[in-house]
Amino acid sequence: MAKVETVLSNQGHKVVLLATLDSKGEEAAHLKSLLVERSDRCVCVVDVGTSGLPAFPADVSRECVSRSGGGLSNASGPAGALDVMATGAARIVRAMFDKGEISAIAGIGGGKGAGVFHRATKDLPYGFPKLLVTSGRPALLAEIATTTDTILLPTLVDLFGMNQFTRAALGNAADMLAGLAWKGVEERTGKTVAITAFGVTTPAVQTIKSLLEAARITVVAFPANGAGGRTMETLIGKGAFDGVIDLTTTEMADLHLGGTASAGEGRLTAASRVGIPQVIAPGAIDMVNFGSPDTVPAEFSDRVKYQHTPMTTLVRTRPEDTAEIARQTADRLNKAIGPVAVLWPGGGVSDYDRPGHAFHDPSANTAWRDSMKETLLPSIPVTETEHHINDPEFAALCSDWMIAQMEARP
Amino acid sequence: MAKVETVLSNQGHKVVLLATLDSKGEEAAHLKSLLVERSDRCVCVVDVGTSGLPAFPADVSRECVSRSGGGLSNASGPAGALDVMATGAARIVRAMFDKGEISAIAGIGGGKGAGVFHRATKDLPYGFPKLLVTSGRPALLAEIATTTDTILLPTLVDLFGMNQFTRAALGNAADMLAGLAWKGVEERTGKTVAITAFGVTTPAVQTIKSLLEAARITVVAFPANGAGGRTMETLIGKGAFDGVIDLTTTEMADLHLGGTASAGEGRLTAASRVGIPQVIAPGAIDMVNFGSPDTVPAEFSDRVKYQHTPMTTLVRTRPEDTAEIARQTADRLNKAIGPVAVLWPGGGVSDYDRPGHAFHDPSANTAWRDSMKETLLPSIPVTETEHHINDPEFAALCSDWMIAQMEARP
Repeated sequence: MAKVETVLSNQGHKVVLLATLDSKGEEAAHLKSLLVERSDRCVCVVDVGTSGLPAFPADVSRECVSRSGGGLSNASGPAGALDVMATGAARIVRAMFDKGEISAIAGIGGGKGAGVFHRATKDLPYGFPKLLVTSGRPALLAEIATTTDTILLPTLVDLFGMNQFTRAALGNAADMLAGLAWKGVEERTGKTVAITAFGVTTPAVQTIKSLLEAARITVVAFPANGAGGRTMETLIGKGAFDGVIDLTTTEMADLHLGGTASAGEGRLTAASRVGIPQVIAPGAIDMVNFGSPDTVPAEFSDRVKYQHTPMTTLVRTRPEDTAEIARQTADRLNKAIGPVAVLWPGGGVSDYDRPGHAFHDPSANTAWRDSMKETLLPSIPVTETEHHINDPEFAALCSDWMIAQMEARP
Repeated sequence: MAKVETVLSNQGHKVVLLATLDSKGEEAAHLKSLLVERSDRCVCVVDVGTSGLPAFPADVSRECVSRSGGGLSNASGPAGALDVMATGAARIVRAMFDKGEISAIAGIGGGKGAGVFHRATKDLPYGFPKLLVTSGRPALLAEIATTTDTILLPTLVDLFGMNQFTRAALGNAADMLAGLAWKGVEERTGKTVAITAFGVTTPAVQTIKSLLEAARITVVAFPANGAGGRTMETLIGKGAFDGVIDLTTTEMADLHLGGTASAGEGRLTAASRVGIPQVIAPGAIDMVNFGSPDTVPAEFSDRVKYQHTPMTTLVRTRPEDTAEIARQTADRLNKAIGPVAVLWPGGGVSDYDRPGHAFHDPSANTAWRDSMKETLLPSIPVTETEHHINDPEFAALCSDWMIAQMEARP
């Protein structure tokens, strides 16, 4: 196990508890009293309610929150009021965090309360404990888990007063909060490189990881499933990485054709913006992800498909698609202020893109290469190889370039 | 705050840790060592891996798990092997739970590992701490949160070896597990009644809750958003409730027209099966839920719609729909082995179904009543009122019937 060196932090031991003290007052009071009873945590209650009266006095009142959010007098309707409270809560939480006063934050809320909690906490660092006890619908939980490491406790029952179910859920929340305390951001003692992964490119990721680790570089892998790509872009923007091996750019295929693994328009932009070295390869751009077969749009009815699992249908991209994906990728890379290397695996871009396998199509692969070369600035090199993306030789090319880049930097 | 009387349990203090010790061996070892270091928890590691070699010896080996699941020799392919491991793990976990040896269970997994964890833990009681550290995609987290109170810690990064991110996530998991310990099922000291709720029927739910609580009946509300209805049906089946006021049967509208809030075919079946008293009303059957406007199926293009939030579009049901919804509801009620009362609010079924509001349509409302009366067995009474569903008088009718039923039972 790696030796963990943590920055000694002067972070306080306080827990923030965010709730609407009108509709969720009973629940907030119960959780607070459990925490006081079962642990030595000091609780700071922030009231984000806008209707009715608080069930008990908050440590940070709703007036204080709304003032910090710009005031309710200019807010238009209930949605506007929620905006103000979310903005105000985010500022107050951030100020407490910056002063080192808090080491965890908890929230209790239904759909709207969960939304306010998410907006108030989403810019806190990865690893800072954010615990949300919520009756919000599952799709909302998925949305929150797409961009933050919020710990989710789904109550299943409505938060509508105390009963044996809400007592059990809040009891678990109190037991967790008793111990949850941020240890600070771990000190970076060497270089850290991000890499994008998919099941069908895992052999390449494993080899690259071994090679980089042998050079004392830490590797952080992101699943290229939409959420992973978004998270990686966000973390790159915050300076979390010294380089990125964007091996599995398949999310660009989903962006282009409307698949479920799209990471949005912001994909492949952060590394170019901050200027860290990046290796780019067309990993898994042979496939666009959809759910069960009946969720595949009718326009793709005559496409080659592969049933990955009962809940995952993959649609094969065509040469005109891969050419467009390359164009969009190259457009982004042309804005890079740091070094870029594009590596092309002529032997195939995924485990399914091999002779005899469902998605084998060399013409789609060469279309990506040709479009990439045509669109890229001449200053960005494209290295053409005949290796398959999962061949050890291809992994070595990716690793060697990145290791050289890392060694050239202090 | 209500006095909490818990059953003193002889539940052990052991934590089960479920993981594939091949692909997630490093992560499992790290979490186990943190737990031992930071708390007095005894950890029982269960290996559910089927490929490669375990990174360290498990307390319950993969051979033991697969044997308990029926053996791998008859399993067909990787999916079959997962089935066997999930079945085996579920049996082993259940046996430890039944013997009172464990007080929490944790899992570490990607998509497949999360699936195995879910299947191994989904039948443990509500409130028994189930913590899942996962890199699985958000949609999978939503699926898990639809039916269980599993505490979800999304890692965002892949679980692919140790780095500053996985150390932070596993550190939080250890801090939570240090305190998470099941307190046993709370002893039921009085009657408990379930009720279904939606924003547009909340006034009725609040009034009913007050009236029942005044009669010393505990009320547990479920959001009628698909997940809530499914959970309520499951809990009714397990004997958690003495009665149900199914005020908001809107999930039957989503079932009929393919909305996002469908709770499946099993909705409105458990209470009839177990024979607890049930009050039925057509709450919010004026609406079917969809996501953003572009997700509404083309067949509903000429329907009356209402934009509830940017992410929620409501489609108005027509008389032919509400008649069919009533028929399907009545078919289920006709199988009831316990008392049933159907109450009809002639003044409207939701806050949007009032004169001057978007969904006001008395013909759709009477179609429900007529179809209900036509389909129901003569032994089941339909009480027709001219109240709106949110009128206090309607709430009183629901409550009075249920209180009388509860008082007639020991």
